Amino acid sequence: MAKNFTTREENYSEWYNEIVKRADLAENSDVRGCMVIKPYGYAIWEKMQRQLDDMFKETGHVNAYFPLFIPKSYLSKEADHVEGFAKECAVVTHYRLKTSDKGGVEVDPAAKLEEELIVRPTSETIIWNTYKNWIQSYRDLPILVNQWANVVRWEMRTRLFLRTAEFLWQEGHTAHATKEEAIEETEKMLNVYAEFAEQYMAVAVLKGKKTESERFAGALDTYCIEALMQDGKALQAGTSHFLGQNFAKAFDVKFAGKDGKQDYVWATSWGVSTRLMGALVMSHSDDHGLVLPPKLAPIQVVIVPIYKGEDQLKAIAEKIDTLLPKLKALGISVKFDDRDTHKPGWKFAEYEFKGVPIRIGLGARDLENGTAELARRDTLEKVTIDFDEIQQKVPALLQEIQDSLLAKSKARIQDTTTVVDDYEGFKKAIDKGGFVSAHWDGTPETEEQIKKETKATIRCIPLNNTLEPGTCIYSKNPSTQRVIFAKAY
Amino acid sequence: MAKNFTTREENYSEWYNEIVKRADLAENSDVRGCMVIKPYGYAIWEKMQRQLDDMFKETGHVNAYFPLFIPKSYLSKEADHVEGFAKECAVVTHYRLKTSDKGGVEVDPAAKLEEELIVRPTSETIIWNTYKNWIQSYRDLPILVNQWANVVRWEMRTRLFLRTAEFLWQEGHTAHATKEEAIEETEKMLNVYAEFAEQYMAVAVLKGKKTESERFAGALDTYCIEALMQDGKALQAGTSHFLGQNFAKAFDVKFAGKDGKQDYVWATSWGVSTRLMGALVMSHSDDHGLVLPPKLAPIQVVIVPIYKGEDQLKAIAEKIDTLLPKLKALGISVKFDDRDTHKPGWKFAEYEFKGVPIRIGLGARDLENGTAELARRDTLEKVTIDFDEIQQKVPALLQEIQDSLLAKSKARIQDTTTVVDDYEGFKKAIDKGGFVSAHWDGTPETEEQIKKETKATIRCIPLNNTLEPGTCIYSKNPSTQRVIFAKAY
Repeated sequence: MAKNFTTREENYSEWYNEIVKRADLAENSDVRGCMVIKPYGYAIWEKMQRQLDDMFKETGHVNAYFPLFIPKSYLSKEADHVEGFAKECAVVTHYRLKTSDKGGVEVDPAAKLEEELIVRPTSETIIWNTYKNWIQSYRDLPILVNQWANVVRWEMRTRLFLRTAEFLWQEGHTAHATKEEAIEETEKMLNVYAEFAEQYMAVAVLKGKKTESERFAGALDTYCIEALMQDGKALQAGTSHFLGQNFAKAFDVKFAGKDGKQDYVWATSWGVSTRLMGALVMSHSDDHGLVLPPKLAPIQVVIVPIYKGEDQLKAIAEKIDTLLPKLKALGISVKFDDRDTHKPGWKFAEYEFKGVPIRIGLGARDLENGTAELARRDTLEKVTIDFDEIQQKVPALLQEIQDSLLAKSKARIQDTTTVVDDYEGFKKAIDKGGFVSAHWDGTPETEEQIKKETKATIRCIPLNNTLEPGTCIYSKNPSTQRVIFAKAY
Repeated sequence: MAKNFTTREENYSEWYNEIVKRADLAENSDVRGCMVIKPYGYAIWEKMQRQLDDMFKETGHVNAYFPLFIPKSYLSKEADHVEGFAKECAVVTHYRLKTSDKGGVEVDPAAKLEEELIVRPTSETIIWNTYKNWIQSYRDLPILVNQWANVVRWEMRTRLFLRTAEFLWQEGHTAHATKEEAIEETEKMLNVYAEFAEQYMAVAVLKGKKTESERFAGALDTYCIEALMQDGKALQAGTSHFLGQNFAKAFDVKFAGKDGKQDYVWATSWGVSTRLMGALVMSHSDDHGLVLPPKLAPIQVVIVPIYKGEDQLKAIAEKIDTLLPKLKALGISVKFDDRDTHKPGWKFAEYEFKGVPIRIGLGARDLENGTAELARRDTLEKVTIDFDEIQQKVPALLQEIQDSLLAKSKARIQDTTTVVDDYEGFKKAIDKGGFVSAHWDGTPETEEQIKKETKATIRCIPLNNTLEPGTCIYSKNPSTQRVIFAKAY
């Protein structure tokens, strides 16, 4: 199976596409820019969703659901927001088809909507229009709501998971009585995202704030987590926005404080999407296919029997039948693949390609010796162990794989982050890949010029950044701190 | 709170609307026909989803995700399907807005799609277009896939949960090598729905098949579960369709059998939606508000302290702190409402209205006596019990409430099903409400005439119906069996 498979070295981009498709994660549909998330890919996304949802609920949030459609006029109520979102989006103009004279169906011109509806690219406007009726006094605050939904942004160049016209995500939308509380919420959710990325996806991230020009349209501050892929490019993995009173003002959402005074409500929004699937694939996978962190693997352990004839299979199956309930009782997701439609070699390659963290092989000789072969996907190491040790070794090994993947991801950031002090050094570092720490004069003009000349963007101003006077690598004007540059997805 | 509240007697329809809105289940949005599902309502839907999802997985299904948009031409590929679905739907014609000279934004005429996209009203077409590439041989079958998604049908008259332009649902789409297997799947999923309705929603249902004219557009057979609301109207709560080879033929999906012969694939689809929320509300609620079956209640037990001053509250809270972990350990969702912003009386009315199955009241005198007051929502009965008995009594009482609601629902069907033998009796029975069992000659013409004259439709031909020769109540032509009529939502 891995025979005619593109390596990272040969073509990183093609390598990514092949993994996504051949590991049955997703495929392009006939609808431009829209993907089909296949069962194996969706099972990983479900694990992400379940974990994130638990974390949202632990931090006091509840789920709700708001309309898919947004009246066109809503988008223009918040001036910056419309600039960022009202352009490339799917517009519903009619509500009926009719039978065509030429066969098939055609749009019924009589069924034109008075006001066009936009398929939500994000839901701030429709939600704040709703919150207007939910909020009268400080007693109604905070509102801590999250929505799991599909959104559409009409992207011209799409890539599976990383950039698709329709994608799945969650969007948190919270309302607060004070600025401080809203900022605290924004930071809290960034930390939830960072914890999820590191502890579950095993993807190390840098926490920081976006510069003004990279901010969410309508936000006063955008916080982000930035991950680093194996090709040295950064990937924004989640954002949390402090929206100030912008949307409250646009939709006239006021509350009466304890003192009876009216004030506009403070807002945040935060989201992660199926883009995380792309980050997951590009962080850990290798030239043999997908590598999954055990905590998000739909199948954590696969058991493959190696046998000749039905009698051998039966003997192996009997042995495995004693093991399966023990592993399941430990909360381990295990699959015994006793299909006779495929050979063991094919199965080995298949599960390797699909990134199953641990593979256990059991043959006739193992039965005689009371042994089994344990193969771990991340290092491809194999060891022969006593069969009776399996239930004890597997949980520890799963944890070891999880930890090891995170350690590798952390090391990647550490090893490839370059500190530079001049523009020549900067350009070399950007070409090499990885994060580049450099002084910047704080102006969007300089940021824009650097982007034009090198394709590098400011990924973030790290949280708790050390203030350190210096000289901007580009303009040579004074700078107060270093920021993190990189080329990015 | 319940003061100026409409009773069922006064206006059943208004009673329903008030419960949905005032119990914070859902509200209308500014977007025509689209609702906002509020956190409390969504929490119930989440419980439904989780349980159904578990049942789907136990029966071998996996989840996936397909595009929101369907190319217009796909809808017309299956002749019956286009008749049923291609009419009232949201049509995307453009993919960009631009800044308008008049301020705001307007549709960019330059960004017109070559082929219009339909927001999915159901996904058979896009999914079978995808399955075409997934299926080559019998080894690829069966495909047992489910999707949780939003769909849009442009309804002219909408009602919260019961009929909305956008709604949430799940749609299973399976592919099989044989007709028998597909029929078995269709029936299996109908049984899953019936079990869910009865065991979790506590809603008794009748299982049956639809007549030809009530069938899903594109199906050879539509199986359904029909529930009966308190006003005597039926509500179709779930459907499971045997699609034959219709969609396989429309999208040219063939497979090679073990003998190498090519044949079209057999299909099923099945779905339930947020409409179930409407069925839940209308099945159990009373003139005091919502009544929820414990298995789907977001809060199963609420504890309300009755106190004067902080000292009393503190003493009660300390006592409750010993109880909460015990109840939680039993898997019971319990809330201790110690807010000082609202009085106990307000809280009692609030939780009663929101249908929390058990309310525990604890005051200063209870502390002295070692007692507590237990109130069950369904019967409004109150008993004083020993505080130490709570953890033992609550689980049993929750089960009792669950069973009692189902028993009432079953009794409603039994008590209101009328067997009639002539058209006069039929019309009277239909006016009275409930299911009406009557002979029908089997023709769509008779069905249509009866519908016109009485607004009653054939809800289903019960599964395992006794064949019994008789005379059609309308045409007086010979009939082979009785079918079930009712007015319906």
